[in-house]
Amino acid sequence: MSDARVKFVLDEPEIPTHWVNLMADLPGDAPPPLHPGTKQPAGPEDLSPIFPMALILQEVSTEPEIEIPEPVWEAYRLWRPTPLYRALRLERELDTPARIYYKYEGGSPPGSHKPNTAVAQAYENAAAGTRKLTTETGAGQWGSALAFACRLFGLECEVWMVGSSYDQKPYRRSMMESWGAVVHRSPSDVTEAGRSQREHTTGSLGIAISEAVEVAARNPDTNYSLGSVLNHVLLHQTVIGQEALAQMAMAGEEPDTVIACVGGGSNFGGLTLPFLRRVMREGAGTRFIAAEPAACPTLTRGVYAYDFGDTVGLTPLMPMYTLGHNFVPPPVHAGGLRYHGDSPLVCGLVKQGLVEPRAYRQNETFEAAVRFARAEGIIPAPEPAHAIRAVIEEAEVARESGEARVILFGLCGHGHFDLSAYDAYLAGKLPDPEFSEGELSAALASLPEAPALA
Amino acid sequence: MSDARVKFVLDEPEIPTHWVNLMADLPGDAPPPLHPGTKQPAGPEDLSPIFPMALILQEVSTEPEIEIPEPVWEAYRLWRPTPLYRALRLERELDTPARIYYKYEGGSPPGSHKPNTAVAQAYENAAAGTRKLTTETGAGQWGSALAFACRLFGLECEVWMVGSSYDQKPYRRSMMESWGAVVHRSPSDVTEAGRSQREHTTGSLGIAISEAVEVAARNPDTNYSLGSVLNHVLLHQTVIGQEALAQMAMAGEEPDTVIACVGGGSNFGGLTLPFLRRVMREGAGTRFIAAEPAACPTLTRGVYAYDFGDTVGLTPLMPMYTLGHNFVPPPVHAGGLRYHGDSPLVCGLVKQGLVEPRAYRQNETFEAAVRFARAEGIIPAPEPAHAIRAVIEEAEVARESGEARVILFGLCGHGHFDLSAYDAYLAGKLPDPEFSEGELSAALASLPEAPALA
Repeated sequence: MSDARVKFVLDEPEIPTHWVNLMADLPGDAPPPLHPGTKQPAGPEDLSPIFPMALILQEVSTEPEIEIPEPVWEAYRLWRPTPLYRALRLERELDTPARIYYKYEGGSPPGSHKPNTAVAQAYENAAAGTRKLTTETGAGQWGSALAFACRLFGLECEVWMVGSSYDQKPYRRSMMESWGAVVHRSPSDVTEAGRSQREHTTGSLGIAISEAVEVAARNPDTNYSLGSVLNHVLLHQTVIGQEALAQMAMAGEEPDTVIACVGGGSNFGGLTLPFLRRVMREGAGTRFIAAEPAACPTLTRGVYAYDFGDTVGLTPLMPMYTLGHNFVPPPVHAGGLRYHGDSPLVCGLVKQGLVEPRAYRQNETFEAAVRFARAEGIIPAPEPAHAIRAVIEEAEVARESGEARVILFGLCGHGHFDLSAYDAYLAGKLPDPEFSEGELSAALASLPEAPALA
Repeated sequence: MSDARVKFVLDEPEIPTHWVNLMADLPGDAPPPLHPGTKQPAGPEDLSPIFPMALILQEVSTEPEIEIPEPVWEAYRLWRPTPLYRALRLERELDTPARIYYKYEGGSPPGSHKPNTAVAQAYENAAAGTRKLTTETGAGQWGSALAFACRLFGLECEVWMVGSSYDQKPYRRSMMESWGAVVHRSPSDVTEAGRSQREHTTGSLGIAISEAVEVAARNPDTNYSLGSVLNHVLLHQTVIGQEALAQMAMAGEEPDTVIACVGGGSNFGGLTLPFLRRVMREGAGTRFIAAEPAACPTLTRGVYAYDFGDTVGLTPLMPMYTLGHNFVPPPVHAGGLRYHGDSPLVCGLVKQGLVEPRAYRQNETFEAAVRFARAEGIIPAPEPAHAIRAVIEEAEVARESGEARVILFGLCGHGHFDLSAYDAYLAGKLPDPEFSEGELSAALASLPEAPALA
C-alpha cells in the first residue's frame, strides 16, 4: 500500500478566496421565504433586526461567487486548508474495490466545519458594530464555533444549548466558556420562549432558536447567528467543497458518489455545492447522498412545505422538507441533526432528485463509527457517523458488483466530546430511540397556513 | 498581518525517513543503566523479558541515524507531517516584538505526540510475535496512543491508568476502549504491585509502571511498552524536531529559544534533540528551556543519582534527576508530568548546562493556557500549558528589552479531555497543590544504593 498516498494537503495560499453561490446556477427562481405575519415574501428589511445587512445581501445574492473578506480569510488560516485523506485502511477492512476519500474538518479548534461560517458571521457583525451575538447549539459544535469566532473578532457571545446535549456533553459547555461565552440550558427561564416550552425538558433546536432570536430581536446592539439552514451559511461552507475539488484532482480521482450527513444542511452543502455546480454546468454523473437520523427523518419522512424555522414561530416561513416546527425529536447523540426542517437550498435539490436522502438508526451509525475509528484512527462525531454508515453500504455494494467506485465523504467533526455515547454503545447500552408516529402526525397537522409549494 | 504566514505545512513525502539518535553526538560515554539486583550494567538480555530485541538495540545504539521501518512510516502518514504555526495573534495579545512559533502535535488521532513512538513500538512487537502490550498511562495520552497503535498492528493492549487521572478523565478511558484496549484503574487489584500500593489511592506513574511491568514479565507472549524516559522512545519522537527544523527554514527563521514541557522527556526530547544536535555540531547559540510542574519538580528539586524507574523497584536503575521512586506527587491535572524521574538523556543535558529547567504552579499554567486559547483558538493540554507559561515569560522579557527574539515551542497535545480542569480554573476553584517537603526528604532518603554519578 505504500505507493498510494493517503493524505492530500494544500498550502496556505491555496485557501479559497471566494465562496461558491449555487443560487446563481439554479434553474428558475427559488420560492422566497415569507414574513411570518403577512405571509408575503420577506425582504431584507424583515431580517435586519437580527442580521447585519452584509449577511442579508449574501443571503439573497445571485452572484455566482462572493469574495471572502480578508479578515475572514486570515482567520481561516488558523485551521485551513484542511486535509483530504484516502481511507486505505478502511478499504482493506471492508475488503472493497471502492476507493474511499474523506475531507476532514475536525482539525479546527472547535473540532468541526462550523467555524467556516462562524468567523464570517462574527466578522460581518463586528464590522456592522454589533456588540453581542446570540445563538442556539445542539451537540455544541456550533456554539463552540461561534464562541471561538466571537473571541477572534471581539464580540460577546450568548448560547442556548439544547437540554439533552447540555446534559450529555458538559465539556462542550466548558469549551465555550474557555473562549469566553455565556451558556444557558434550553429551555431556559431567561426568555419567554423558553418559559413557554418548559414541558419539553430535553429541549430541541427549534426551541433554542426561539430563545436566541427573542433576545437578539429585543436588544438593538445584539444580533442572532444561525449555524446552518440559511443560504449565507451554506455559502460560507463552500470552502470545504472547493478544497476537496482541488484535492481530488491532486489524487487524480473523480468521485462517483459524494456523501455527507444532513442536519440543517451546512456540512452537506459545504462539501457538495461546488461539486453540484460542476454537475449542473458540465453534466458530470456524480451521485449525492444525504444521510440523516431515522429519529429525525426530515428528508425521508417530512413534507415539502412552508414552515417556521423555530418552534415558537418567530422566524420567516421557509420552503423546505419539514416534520413540523412542533416536532421534538428523541434525544439521539447526533444533536446537530435534531432539527425539524432543513436548508431550503438542499431541500430543493432533494425535491429535484439531484440528492438522494437516506435515514439511519443510532446504533447502526455507532457501529459504523467504531469500525471507522478502529481502521483509520479518527473517532468521528455521531453526526458524520451517519455518512460513514452510508459509505460502508456503498462500499459493500461495490464489493458485490466488483466495481472500483470512487466515494468521497465529509468527516465534519471529531467525537472527543461524544465518548459517553461510545461508552454506552460499547457496553451494549446505547438506546435506539424512535420518534412517535402520533407526534409526527400532530406536528405535520399544525403546519402554518401558507401557499403550497410546487 | 496578512503578509506574514501563520502555517507552515510539509507534504506527505517530507515525513522524515530516519530518526535522530543524539547518543552518537554526546561527548564521552553515558552512565549505563544498572541491573536492579546485581547493580552491574544492564545488558540487552536483562531487558529481553519485556522488550523486543529490535527496540533494545535502538535503546543502546550509537548510530547517528536509524531508518524508520516502512510500516511505521506508513502509519505516520495518518497524521504526519504536523503543522508549524506562527502565533501571530498571541504575539499581538502579548504586545511583544518576539516572534513565536509552535509545532502542533495535537492533530494525531489520540491528540498528542505519543503515537510517534507508540506505532514504532507496536510495529516492532508485532514483528517479534508479541501478542499483547501492557503499559501505564497518566493523563491518558500515552494509553490512548498505544491503544490506537496496537489496533493498527493487530496487538492486544492492557493499560493501567493512574487513579487520579482515571477519575478526572473518564472519556480518555472510553477513547482507549473505542480502539479496543482494556483499562484498569491503578493501583489495581490484579497485580501484586498494585495490591502493595493500595494506600496511595490517587496512584502515580511509578506505581502504574510497576503493575504493567509485572504482567509483562510473567507472561511470555506479553511485552511492556513505555511512553517516555527511554532512549528509544525519545529517538522515535525526533520526527517532531526534524520536521520543525524544515518548517523553521521555510519560515526563514532560526530559533533563539526552544521550549517544551518535560514529564519523562519524550516531548521535550522529540522537539529539541535535532536542534541540540545542530548546536553540538555547529555551535549555534540556541537556548533550551524545560518546563515542569512545581508539584513534581524533578529537574529543579531532584538529585542526580541512580534510581528505579518505577515505584516497586522492578526496572533497571537509571542515571537521572529523581525525587525518589517512592515520591507520589499531588494530583495536578498535568498527569503526563507526574513522574518522579526523567529521561537519562535529558537529565544529562540538564546536568551539562545545555538545558535550563523551570517549574510552574498549576494555576499560573492554566492562566497561560486560557490566554493562549483565546488568542490562537487551540485549547492546550495541561502539560504543554507549562511550556506556554515559559513562552509568555520569555515574550515579556523580549518586550522589556525590545528584542525581536524567535521562540519555538512544542504544543504536544490538545486539552479536549481536560475541560473539567478548565471549568475549575474559570470558576476560581482549581487547587494549586504543593508537595510535602517531608515526603520529598523521605523519598530522597530511600534512594537505592548504587555508584555515585559524576
